[in-house]
Amino acid sequence: SPRWFERINVNGYAQFRYSTRSQNNLTNQQGESFSNNNNGDFFYRRIRMVFQGQMSDRISFFIQGAYEGNGFQTSNAEMVDAYADYYITKNKEHRIRAGLQRVPNSFDTYRSSSQRQELDRSESVQTGAPGERDFGLAYYWSPKVAQERFATMTTYHNGPGDYGVFGIMVYNGQGRNQIERNRDKHFGAKLSYPFELPNGRLLEAGVLAFTGIYNVQNVGAPTSTSGSRCAKVLTHGGCEIQDQRVTAYIFTPPQPWGFQGEYTVGRGPERNAQGFVAEQELHGGYAQVNYTWRYSDVGQLTPYVRYSYYHGGMKNFQGAAADNTMWNFGLVWEPDTHLRLVSEYSLHDRLDTTVLALNRSQDELYGHWLRFQIQYFFN
Amino acid sequence: SPRWFERINVNGYAQFRYSTRSQNNLTNQQGESFSNNNNGDFFYRRIRMVFQGQMSDRISFFIQGAYEGNGFQTSNAEMVDAYADYYITKNKEHRIRAGLQRVPNSFDTYRSSSQRQELDRSESVQTGAPGERDFGLAYYWSPKVAQERFATMTTYHNGPGDYGVFGIMVYNGQGRNQIERNRDKHFGAKLSYPFELPNGRLLEAGVLAFTGIYNVQNVGAPTSTSGSRCAKVLTHGGCEIQDQRVTAYIFTPPQPWGFQGEYTVGRGPERNAQGFVAEQELHGGYAQVNYTWRYSDVGQLTPYVRYSYYHGGMKNFQGAAADNTMWNFGLVWEPDTHLRLVSEYSLHDRLDTTVLALNRSQDELYGHWLRFQIQYFFN
Amino acid sequence: SPRWFERINVNGYAQFRYSTRSQNNLTNQQGESFSNNNNGDFFYRRIRMVFQGQMSDRISFFIQGAYEGNGFQTSNAEMVDAYADYYITKNKEHRIRAGLQRVPNSFDTYRSSSQRQELDRSESVQTGAPGERDFGLAYYWSPKVAQERFATMTTYHNGPGDYGVFGIMVYNGQGRNQIERNRDKHFGAKLSYPFELPNGRLLEAGVLAFTGIYNVQNVGAPTSTSGSRCAKVLTHGGCEIQDQRVTAYIFTPPQPWGFQGEYTVGRGPERNAQGFVAEQELHGGYAQVNYTWRYSDVGQLTPYVRYSYYHGGMKNFQGAAADNTMWNFGLVWEPDTHLRLVSEYSLHDRLDTTVLALNRSQDELYGHWLRFQIQYFFN
Repeated sequence: SPRWFERINVNGYAQFRYSTRSQNNLTNQQGESFSNNNNGDFFYRRIRMVFQGQMSDRISFFIQGAYEGNGFQTSNAEMVDAYADYYITKNKEHRIRAGLQRVPNSFDTYRSSSQRQELDRSESVQTGAPGERDFGLAYYWSPKVAQERFATMTTYHNGPGDYGVFGIMVYNGQGRNQIERNRDKHFGAKLSYPFELPNGRLLEAGVLAFTGIYNVQNVGAPTSTSGSRCAKVLTHGGCEIQDQRVTAYIFTPPQPWGFQGEYTVGRGPERNAQGFVAEQELHGGYAQVNYTWRYSDVGQLTPYVRYSYYHGGMKNFQGAAADNTMWNFGLVWEPDTHLRLVSEYSLHDRLDTTVLALNRSQDELYGHWLRFQIQYFFN
Repeated sequence: SPRWFERINVNGYAQFRYSTRSQNNLTNQQGESFSNNNNGDFFYRRIRMVFQGQMSDRISFFIQGAYEGNGFQTSNAEMVDAYADYYITKNKEHRIRAGLQRVPNSFDTYRSSSQRQELDRSESVQTGAPGERDFGLAYYWSPKVAQERFATMTTYHNGPGDYGVFGIMVYNGQGRNQIERNRDKHFGAKLSYPFELPNGRLLEAGVLAFTGIYNVQNVGAPTSTSGSRCAKVLTHGGCEIQDQRVTAYIFTPPQPWGFQGEYTVGRGPERNAQGFVAEQELHGGYAQVNYTWRYSDVGQLTPYVRYSYYHGGMKNFQGAAADNTMWNFGLVWEPDTHLRLVSEYSLHDRLDTTVLALNRSQDELYGHWLRFQIQYFFN
Repeated sequence: SPRWFERINVNGYAQFRYSTRSQNNLTNQQGESFSNNNNGDFFYRRIRMVFQGQMSDRISFFIQGAYEGNGFQTSNAEMVDAYADYYITKNKEHRIRAGLQRVPNSFDTYRSSSQRQELDRSESVQTGAPGERDFGLAYYWSPKVAQERFATMTTYHNGPGDYGVFGIMVYNGQGRNQIERNRDKHFGAKLSYPFELPNGRLLEAGVLAFTGIYNVQNVGAPTSTSGSRCAKVLTHGGCEIQDQRVTAYIFTPPQPWGFQGEYTVGRGPERNAQGFVAEQELHGGYAQVNYTWRYSDVGQLTPYVRYSYYHGGMKNFQGAAADNTMWNFGLVWEPDTHLRLVSEYSLHDRLDTTVLALNRSQDELYGHWLRFQIQYFFN
C-alpha cells in the first residue's frame, strides 16, 4: 500500500501585503491589518498550510490551518477547514462531507483565496456566510462529466473546484469558528451545472439557498442605552432572527476573457437608525470582467474590474446596516508558477459599521484603498 | 542515509461530534462543547496532528499538536505531546524520555484517543492526571518479548502501545500545560506485564503509583467569603496539598471479547461542605466489557458497556468533591480502515463541580448524555 | 517534475530545559519560564517546526512556527519566520526576500537557536531587534564563493548561513509580531565578507546598521503619575523616538577553537531616573571563545565562555535603562547527531526592568542562573 507521503500532501500559500487607505474609519470588514494612522504597513493577510490526503478508496480528508493571526501578530492559529469525505460510490459521484467546511452560500465563498485573484470577496454575498465555513454535514453529487469540467476550470483563474452539481448541508449557522448559540440548525442547498460550449468555452451557472435562525450577539435589551438593541434578548444572550437567502450566479473563466456575476436576495438581521436589530429584506450582487494574457510559458498578466453593491444587514457586526457600493480595479502579474503579484485600487461608498450612541444612525463613508500583494505558493 | 520523509511520519486523526445532554449544568469535566441550551450541536472534540520520527539509531521524537481549541473555536493550538526518546541500548530495551509526555498514572491515561473507543476516559483515574501529560524526565524498560506483545495489542482496540514493563518519571505535577507552582516535583512509577495465555489471548496487568505536592489554584483565605477556601494560602498563590495514588489494572483486548478494569486509592485535595479544600482520602474505579465482530475484511462492530465510580476530590477544579457514578453504553462501527463511528449513551449521578457560595455544599445532579462521533484518521 | 516531498522539507528542533535562579526578580528578558519561587522546573524554551522548499527555479520559501507558548503552556502558536525568496539570477547571487524575516541588526540575531550554542543571545545586540525578525522586503547579494563559505561555516557551531555579503531591508520596525504603530519604516543594511585564511581557517567580518522611528508603548503623559512617561504621547498611543545603531563583528568558527565578538553604538529610547523615556546614547558588546573537541565520529564537547555588557535602553520594555554586564560559562555535549546537551552558569549585574513608581529609579540586581538544556533535532 502507498506510503504516507504518497497519500498525504502538504501544500499551502501566503499573502504578504502593503496596504494604505484614505481614512482610518474605512476599515475592511473581511480583515486587513491597516496600522492606526492610515498609512502603509507590511503584514500577512494569510499564511495557510494544508494537509490533505486520500487515505483509502473511500476516505479522504482536508485540513487547512490559518497562521496569520491578526496579520501583524502571527499567533492564535486557527483551523479554517477540517473535513473528511466518505465516497458512497467508488466513482466518487456521491459523497458525504463531515466537519468544518464551506457552506452552500455563493460561488464567491466556495472559491479559495489561492484561486481567487481579487483581494477580497464581494460583501454582497460574503455577508451570508462570514468566514465561508461552518460545522456540519453535507452531501454532494457530481456526475463524472461535471467532475472533469470542475477540474479543468481550476486550471484557469477563479475556478473553485468540485462543490457538486447538487449539494445539501446542515450546519450550526453562527459562522466559521463561532460558538453555536441555539438549537436551530441552518440548512443550505445548491444546484449548478458546468457547461462546455461548442467553441470550448466553459460556463457554470447555479443557484444556492439557505435558511436558519441566527443569534445576533452583543445586543442590549430594548430599554438599554446601547446603540445596538433587540426587541427580545434571550436569557442565555443574543437575539434570534430569521436568516435566509437565495443566490444565483454565472461564471466563465478567462479564456482569455472571463466573466463572473452573482445576485442575492433574502431576509436577515439589520440594525435601523434607532439602533434596533430586526429582520429586514436584503439584496445585492456583483459583476466582474477579467482578461488573461499569457505572455510566456509561465508568465501571465490579468487585469480585472468589479462592481459590487449590497443593501441589507451584516449579521456578524451586530446587524450593522449596509448600503454599500464598491469598485475594484486590479492587475495580477504571475511571473512564475509559484508567485503572484496583485495591485488593487478600490473605491468605497459605505456605512460605518461601528455601533454608535443610542438613536444615532451609522455614518456614511467615502474613500479608497490602494493595496499590493505578494502571494507565494508551497505545493 | 534515509531521506526526511522516510524518517519522519506525519499522521493524526479528528473527532467530529454531535452531542446532547439532559440539562445545562451536566457539564463534561474532560471537555465537550455543548451549546448553551442543552441541545445538539456540531463541533470538533479533537483535531490532532502528529509529527514523529526516528532520527538516528538512538534518537526518536514525537510531537502532537491539538488544533481543536474549545471545539467551536478551533484556535489556540496547543502541543499535547513533545518528547524525545534516547535509547540507552540499541535493542531499545532501555530508554530515557524527555519532554511533555504521559505520566505514570493509570492504564486509561496512557491510552491515546486514537486507540480508545469510549468518548471519555474514566473520571476515577483521569482525575489523577488531568490532561494525562506533564513536563518531565522518564526512564522505561521493555524487554524484547514485551515490546512485541505491546505492539500486537495495539492492533486490537484500546492497546496503548509500549509504556514499558517498568517505568519511572519525575515531573512538575500541575498537569498538562499548566504553570509549575512549587519547588516540589511529582514522582511516578509503573510495573506491568503483558502475558500471552496458551489460547493466544493477550492479558496485561499492572500497578502504577505517584506522589507529590499539588498546588490548588483559585482558593481564598480561611477568612474570605469564597466558596473555595484553604487553611493556608501561599504568598505566591494557591494552597499546597499532598497528592498521591496507587492504581492497579487488568486489560485484555477484544479477542473477540475483551475486558478492562482499574481501581485506584489515594489521598488528595478535596473541598468539604463548608468550602474548605484539604487533604482527603479518595478511591474509585471502572470495569468495561466489549466485543468486536469483524463482519468483513475491513468492517468491524464493537459494542461496549462501562461502569465507573469515583469518590474523592478533583484537584484541577479547586478540589471539587466527587461522589460520582456513571454508566456508558456504546456502539463502535468501523466501516473502513480510516473511519470510526461511535454512538454513546451515558447515565450520570454526580456532584456539580461549580464553586457555590460560602457554606453551600455542591448540588447533586442526575442526567444523561447522548453523543455521536465521526472519527477519521490521517496516517 | 519533483514530487512535493522532494521539494518540501519538514524539519525543526526542540529545547527542553530545567532552570534555576538566585532570586525571583532576576528575570530573563529574552524569555525563560522560571516558576514563581526561584526553583527548578521543567519547561520548553523552544519547539520549532520548519516547512521549507524550493518550489521552482526562482522561488523558495521558509516557514517556521514556534509552538512553545510561554514554556509551561504550549499554546498560542506563533509564526517566527515566513518568507519567500525570489532569485533574480539563476545562480542565486541576487535575491529578493519578502515577508517575516530576520532584520540586519547583528551577527548574533542572524544566528538560529538551532545553530547557536549559548542559551541566550547577548543583550547588547539583541536589544536592537527584539525577536530578531520583522515584516519587510530585503535584497541580498552573495557571490558564489561567499555562498560556499557561508555553507561551510554552518557545518561548525554558530554559523548562521547565507545572509549575503551585502543586504538591505525596509521593515515596519516595531519588532517581531508587533503591531506597526507609525508611518515611518525602518531601514537596515549589512556588509560582510567570509575570508578563508591560508591555513584553512574561516573568518567572517562585517558591519550592520539600521535607522528608524520606534514607537515606545505603554507610556504616560508628562503629567501622569506613571513611572514610565514621555514628553509627547501621540493621540493614537505611544511616543516616537529615534532608533539607530551601527554594529561591527568578527566571527571565526571553532576549528577547533573559535572566537566571536560584536560591538554596537547608537541612539534609542531610554528611561531616566525620573521615569521619562527619551532618546539617549547606547553602546555595548560581547566577546566569546569556544573550543570543539570531536571525541568520536559523532560525539563532540564544546566549552565556551562569554563576557557581555550593555549600556542603553531596552525599547520593548518601555525604554527601561540597562547598565548590565553578564558572564556565561557553558559546556555543550553532543553525544549524537540529533541530540545536544547544554549546561550553563551565568553571573549577572543588571538593572531591574520593572516600571517602578514615579521618580523611583530602577533597582540594581546581582545574581546567577544555573540552567540545563536537552535539544533534539527533527531533520
